[in-house]
Amino acid sequence: MSELHRIQPHTQLNLSAISADGKTYYEGKRKEAEASFKANRKELAEWQNRWYAEGKRKLLIVFQALDAGGKDGTIRRVFSGINPQGVRVASFKAPTKEELDHDYLWRIHKVVPAKGMIAVFNRSHYEDVLVVRVHDIVPEAVWRPRFEQINQFEKLLADTGTTIIKFYLHISKDEQAERFQERLDDPAKHWKFDPEDLEKRAYWDDYLAAFEEAISRCSTSYAPWYVIPANQNWYRNWAISQILVDTMRELNPQYPQSDIDPTQFTIV
Amino acid sequence: MSELHRIQPHTQLNLSAISADGKTYYEGKRKEAEASFKANRKELAEWQNRWYAEGKRKLLIVFQALDAGGKDGTIRRVFSGINPQGVRVASFKAPTKEELDHDYLWRIHKVVPAKGMIAVFNRSHYEDVLVVRVHDIVPEAVWRPRFEQINQFEKLLADTGTTIIKFYLHISKDEQAERFQERLDDPAKHWKFDPEDLEKRAYWDDYLAAFEEAISRCSTSYAPWYVIPANQNWYRNWAISQILVDTMRELNPQYPQSDIDPTQFTIV
Repeated sequence: MSELHRIQPHTQLNLSAISADGKTYYEGKRKEAEASFKANRKELAEWQNRWYAEGKRKLLIVFQALDAGGKDGTIRRVFSGINPQGVRVASFKAPTKEELDHDYLWRIHKVVPAKGMIAVFNRSHYEDVLVVRVHDIVPEAVWRPRFEQINQFEKLLADTGTTIIKFYLHISKDEQAERFQERLDDPAKHWKFDPEDLEKRAYWDDYLAAFEEAISRCSTSYAPWYVIPANQNWYRNWAISQILVDTMRELNPQYPQSDIDPTQFTIV
Repeated sequence: MSELHRIQPHTQLNLSAISADGKTYYEGKRKEAEASFKANRKELAEWQNRWYAEGKRKLLIVFQALDAGGKDGTIRRVFSGINPQGVRVASFKAPTKEELDHDYLWRIHKVVPAKGMIAVFNRSHYEDVLVVRVHDIVPEAVWRPRFEQINQFEKLLADTGTTIIKFYLHISKDEQAERFQERLDDPAKHWKFDPEDLEKRAYWDDYLAAFEEAISRCSTSYAPWYVIPANQNWYRNWAISQILVDTMRELNPQYPQSDIDPTQFTIV
């Protein structure tokens, strides 16, 4: 699974050539994938306990997607069940005045994970080569050097004990239309509908091009990007949980050893 | 349940007179309490979704206890299942140099919940009238005014949209001994054993007196303390989940209303 969706460094990514349909990659039954997802979630909860108890390393998980791509739903579904004491979700909205008065990595650096912690980024520093680029918020001379700056920043984190995993939730343009339509059709979902999302949809190709370059330039050995087919939530959740479980198995965190001599202590 | 364990303002609390044994308060079967706990946890997850979507109010939940009182276990058991995007756990350890260079509420204020969020405090500003008092870290002339300062601080939070619930996990001295002994007997739990905990146990009565005064002085209408019998984890988890569910039912958060006219939008 990890191999299947990982983008190798120096790939020229073409997102239109990658199916957003989970069924392309999986011939089994949906129910089996759902059962496997639940088992993965349980296993993740146990790994997280060990990760926190070990307290030595850091895990950073980044989610990026177009609107309605499923970032919130993924975080809710994949990370519910994990002890929130060891997980911190950071959601990056439009930067504040204070954040804009600093470099774009300033607000990111403040919330990278501490030892034993898992940080989950709902959007991230990648917005600064995506939305910023598509809508000409800063000139190319400013955003283009960011690919290399981001790589250097992520390398610093990796070199200092952080495992980094980045997920792009890949939905098709038709699937986005369906999700927006659902929000319009169901009065209970009206609050999720933002007219601005339609304006951004008009830039679909530009966003895809921006994602393609960002992922191509910044999928590195120390901070790989995964392109997750996300038209079906069940496949998306399962694939992501499997990649996280695979990662944890490899990292194999352990409860700390202690060299206390229990016979030395008497409880009165 | 909420009434049963809530400490009324101006109570002269005597913790030794309050049973730490959940069975004192519950005649049913443990299995029933566990089933009810699971149902509560599900209900809480749904309330939290609404709380986050509503995005208007704030919820602060404080946990305090003596060592081995079960703070970590409570947080893991009660809040796993909730979307971590809407929950932030803050664990307060011994203050850093920078924190000590500020007033004791400075580090607390930085992490109070934002709109739509739930903040869970594992220890809190109450340490500054507990450990600090018992071990004479600051003189009485410094810590005594803190009761009133804490009340004013909590009132500020309440007046500005924060619901505050504070739990003291009440275990007996015998139960603490058993839990420490377990950590000594089981090699897999040695890492949880801290010889310092035994030193603090020698101050049991002083800690209890400090808790009694803190809870008596700072259980207010706007930020009540609950004393939860915590010798049995199953009762503790169930009681806390029930109080949280009761609170949420009363607060009754709602998904936002939206006045968009869906016929005005066409998705192309």
